Amino acid sequence: MNRTIGLLGGGQLGQMLCEAANPLGIKVVILDAENSPAKQVNAKAEHIAGSFVDSEKIRELARQVDVLTVEIEHVDTHVLEVIAEMGIEVTKKDGSKYYKKVEVQPSWRTIRTIQDKFIQKDHLLQHGIQVAYSTPATENTIAELQRIGKDLGYPFMLKARKDAYDGRGNFPVMSPPDIKKALEVLNGRELYAEKWAHFKMELAVMVVKTEDAQTTDSSSTISYPTVETIHEDSVCKIVYLPPRTIPKKIQQQAQALARKAVGSLWGKGVFGVELFLLDDGKLVVNEIAPRPHNSGHYTIEACPTMSQYKSQILSILGIMPPFPNNTIPAVVPSAIMLNILGGASKTSHDEVIRQSIAIPSAALHMYGKESKPGRKIGHITVVAPTLHEAETLISPLITLIGNIRAERKGIKAPSSKSHPETSPHPLIAVTMGSDSDLPVLNPGLALLESLSIPYHVTITSAHRMPARMTAFASSAVENGFKVIIAAAGGAAHLPGMIAASTSLPVIGVPVKGSTLDGMDSLLSIVQMPRGVPVATVAINNSINAALLAARILGTTDEVIRLKLEKFAKDSEEEVTGKARKLEDLGFEKYLEKR
Amino acid sequence: MNRTIGLLGGGQLGQMLCEAANPLGIKVVILDAENSPAKQVNAKAEHIAGSFVDSEKIRELARQVDVLTVEIEHVDTHVLEVIAEMGIEVTKKDGSKYYKKVEVQPSWRTIRTIQDKFIQKDHLLQHGIQVAYSTPATENTIAELQRIGKDLGYPFMLKARKDAYDGRGNFPVMSPPDIKKALEVLNGRELYAEKWAHFKMELAVMVVKTEDAQTTDSSSTISYPTVETIHEDSVCKIVYLPPRTIPKKIQQQAQALARKAVGSLWGKGVFGVELFLLDDGKLVVNEIAPRPHNSGHYTIEACPTMSQYKSQILSILGIMPPFPNNTIPAVVPSAIMLNILGGASKTSHDEVIRQSIAIPSAALHMYGKESKPGRKIGHITVVAPTLHEAETLISPLITLIGNIRAERKGIKAPSSKSHPETSPHPLIAVTMGSDSDLPVLNPGLALLESLSIPYHVTITSAHRMPARMTAFASSAVENGFKVIIAAAGGAAHLPGMIAASTSLPVIGVPVKGSTLDGMDSLLSIVQMPRGVPVATVAINNSINAALLAARILGTTDEVIRLKLEKFAKDSEEEVTGKARKLEDLGFEKYLEKR
Repeated sequence: MNRTIGLLGGGQLGQMLCEAANPLGIKVVILDAENSPAKQVNAKAEHIAGSFVDSEKIRELARQVDVLTVEIEHVDTHVLEVIAEMGIEVTKKDGSKYYKKVEVQPSWRTIRTIQDKFIQKDHLLQHGIQVAYSTPATENTIAELQRIGKDLGYPFMLKARKDAYDGRGNFPVMSPPDIKKALEVLNGRELYAEKWAHFKMELAVMVVKTEDAQTTDSSSTISYPTVETIHEDSVCKIVYLPPRTIPKKIQQQAQALARKAVGSLWGKGVFGVELFLLDDGKLVVNEIAPRPHNSGHYTIEACPTMSQYKSQILSILGIMPPFPNNTIPAVVPSAIMLNILGGASKTSHDEVIRQSIAIPSAALHMYGKESKPGRKIGHITVVAPTLHEAETLISPLITLIGNIRAERKGIKAPSSKSHPETSPHPLIAVTMGSDSDLPVLNPGLALLESLSIPYHVTITSAHRMPARMTAFASSAVENGFKVIIAAAGGAAHLPGMIAASTSLPVIGVPVKGSTLDGMDSLLSIVQMPRGVPVATVAINNSINAALLAARILGTTDEVIRLKLEKFAKDSEEEVTGKARKLEDLGFEKYLEKR
Repeated sequence: MNRTIGLLGGGQLGQMLCEAANPLGIKVVILDAENSPAKQVNAKAEHIAGSFVDSEKIRELARQVDVLTVEIEHVDTHVLEVIAEMGIEVTKKDGSKYYKKVEVQPSWRTIRTIQDKFIQKDHLLQHGIQVAYSTPATENTIAELQRIGKDLGYPFMLKARKDAYDGRGNFPVMSPPDIKKALEVLNGRELYAEKWAHFKMELAVMVVKTEDAQTTDSSSTISYPTVETIHEDSVCKIVYLPPRTIPKKIQQQAQALARKAVGSLWGKGVFGVELFLLDDGKLVVNEIAPRPHNSGHYTIEACPTMSQYKSQILSILGIMPPFPNNTIPAVVPSAIMLNILGGASKTSHDEVIRQSIAIPSAALHMYGKESKPGRKIGHITVVAPTLHEAETLISPLITLIGNIRAERKGIKAPSSKSHPETSPHPLIAVTMGSDSDLPVLNPGLALLESLSIPYHVTITSAHRMPARMTAFASSAVENGFKVIIAAAGGAAHLPGMIAASTSLPVIGVPVKGSTLDGMDSLLSIVQMPRGVPVATVAINNSINAALLAARILGTTDEVIRLKLEKFAKDSEEEVTGKARKLEDLGFEKYLEKR
């Protein structure tokens, strides 16, 4: 806790790192220009003025601190290697000298691997992690790029291997005539080419690595949730938590792949992993950043006790706490992050600031940077109980940001288009032993619809598909369900067998069969042995199963509870109306008119 | 947005204010000693070194800023009055002079009223706000205090009218012999006395005021949730969101009273309102702080887009957005804040820091202050889906804080078991139709004990005490219960009747009577009509009722869910052991040894 962190780079990532370090009482010494964003919020240390690529300044920083880390990967890794492995010469007061080794986190080796995007991709491939197919350009000539075009097909993406970020250093080669222009733009840089990724969505996962060695041990990487990222002009524009339209399973696969990728690297810290979800449903890693990342800004509000910045600090100091399932949960169901890029004039973004401050559930982060066209100068995060609500709130800001871009680029402002519909994640799983049970469940499902509670309905026969049933039950928690409703008839084993493979509350609906009036189903469901409870409702009464599920969700969801109170009131009024009618008409007329 | 704030005082409240102002791009100029906590996180301005009670320094600050505000109320309100009403002399470059008026928010009038605690109480009384009965001491003599003792009765609280905070300036006069000591301690200060408040709980509400004038218009005050505060040695120790045992209705009354009290004051800003919930159920205001408050620290994590600090900034600048129902909601269901006070040595709190960093859902805030015995040097906020989980997480830290206090005061450390302040609020209500049902419930209650889930057990016969039963059920939500377990036998109406008067999930346990083998109870409980569900478990199976209740709580309480998974694993191992024994011994020997 008393160790001092040396930070190479003092931009907005360093600034938010300092905002996390200050309350922890952890000292950060920054190497960057005077008045850089990070220095503006940190008067606790004597910072170093200079460039984070200046090896002499890096040595000066190293002398003062215990751990070195980066907010940008384009640093001199050779001096970092020397400092970490051989140490740095320090002069004592008596004039004698000694060598002090300073930890570099994540390892200089990781930074060096990631710095060169072709080496990065090659590294990942060698560790069994799918990436877009890439090939180096052996020389910067038209002939070589034509050879690559034949190899990869058109379009392909030509990229500078080093010092490329936010799209700078990328050139999409749509067809052979583009090659000349591409060589002009990327003149003099080492290049490689990537096969064009046909993806349906870009995803990102922040991963924390807590061990120095390369690792496949699942306990040494921890992941934040999977988010969807939208890029514009090759720069991150919007981040959605959760992604708008993909199943939870793919989100989990993305987390697993990101953790595997980060596990293949050296050293501790937080990493941003960008992925593509391809048209064929496969996931590939696009690239990795060995530091906090734009796609993780949302964690400041959505994970208020463990933002990506706090986890960078704790992990590089070796004091990151463990998390259940190696996952850092968001405390809010949804969040949307929107970047603010400088516009044509220094005041282009004033209206964005004004409007974002007027949204109670929006957090504005201005970085204290001078506004320049296209420069990242701030961001906004909106949090909400549903992604739909978050989208509604942020929509006017997205329009404003679109207008700023249009003005900056001298193009027509986009029409304020509607966003693709979001489907909320189901909280209730409804299953049955046979499709013949569906008519019994129908009124309950209709009630869930009318209460706007998202559910997932399926069939899992205990006797005819036992393996599928068990898999369904045992993955229900991780699939985000909160309650399971199971209906079955006869020797009705389904609700009890599901309850045996999950820790969620299971509601059993006895279905009345052709014999025994449903008593067989009722007793099969309700008479569970000690240890495995099933919440049994009346025979065929799926309405009550749905209401019970809603009551369970309502213990923590105020909105659902209020809907239930309204439902009870409506029922009361309905029966009160009948009572009045009966009193008015008398029982004989009432029976006639019924 | 481009206006500069001048801040009188740069302690931890000013520090957290700056942490909120920085990302908004709002400049704050601080008047306080060099290296004060607020200055440590703000290198954006040339601050002023000096005391916030020095009128010349206040004038120097006023010249540089557009709005003045305070993080402490013990300031010179006369100079603030002059600056706000008449303006401050400013010399232009050409040597000519003009008077510049600077807004003071909240108004100097409010600060002056609040500064003198007796005048504050008198002000509130005049505006129809209940406070503890108070009387001024006309002179600091034994005779006068004896007169007051006769008037108020013993014990009474003798208080300095001004410059009193964190209990400094308070003396409890338990009986007449204390008077002499009280006069010695409070020597030379203007005094008043308060009638002793017999309260069952201390509450607090942060309120934002958005209009300059005194107001009863409900749209110009916005409140945060009501919290419970625990004081120790007259200093805030713990804050609970929500309060542990009081109905939601009283929480709402506290918010309304706090808003009314703040509405009676002048100017804009955020206010901390401390209240007593008296033994007779009435609420009275204890005192008001015209600034962010210790009881509102939890808002940093619980209201991550609108902490009390952000709302102070936005309100004093006149750009606070409106909130639905004039309430700022917490995005997490529960939070607990624990103060860290300096211990006997500078390192006394090191272990608190270490352990709080090891809690993933805890946020540590160290203020960058030198540790001195009893000084507020930091705080921790834990957030969780339930107050029970938050209490479980923070409990070891409360023990450590207790040990630090014991060492500081040279007293015996509290035994770690006796935490009266953390007797957790029952989440499950267990009730039965008759005490003859208790033996059936016994194993279930024992299981709740073993899972450390707090419950409340009672009797509410449907047929012999119907009114009490209905009252019990209909107040269950506001009493903080999440699940109800009801056991009954024969014509077992209790579970269904309770379900008819609450929106909580109700679990029914059919109790086997002397006839019909429990089938009467089972069918009476399970065959509920549509609209009113009862989660029925097997006859006499209170274990499963308890497990089902735990599963319901476990849908949002990770700790409980993990305990349930362990329970299932233990059961599996137990039965696995029996299987092995049976296979080893053969069935005949197994039956012999059984």
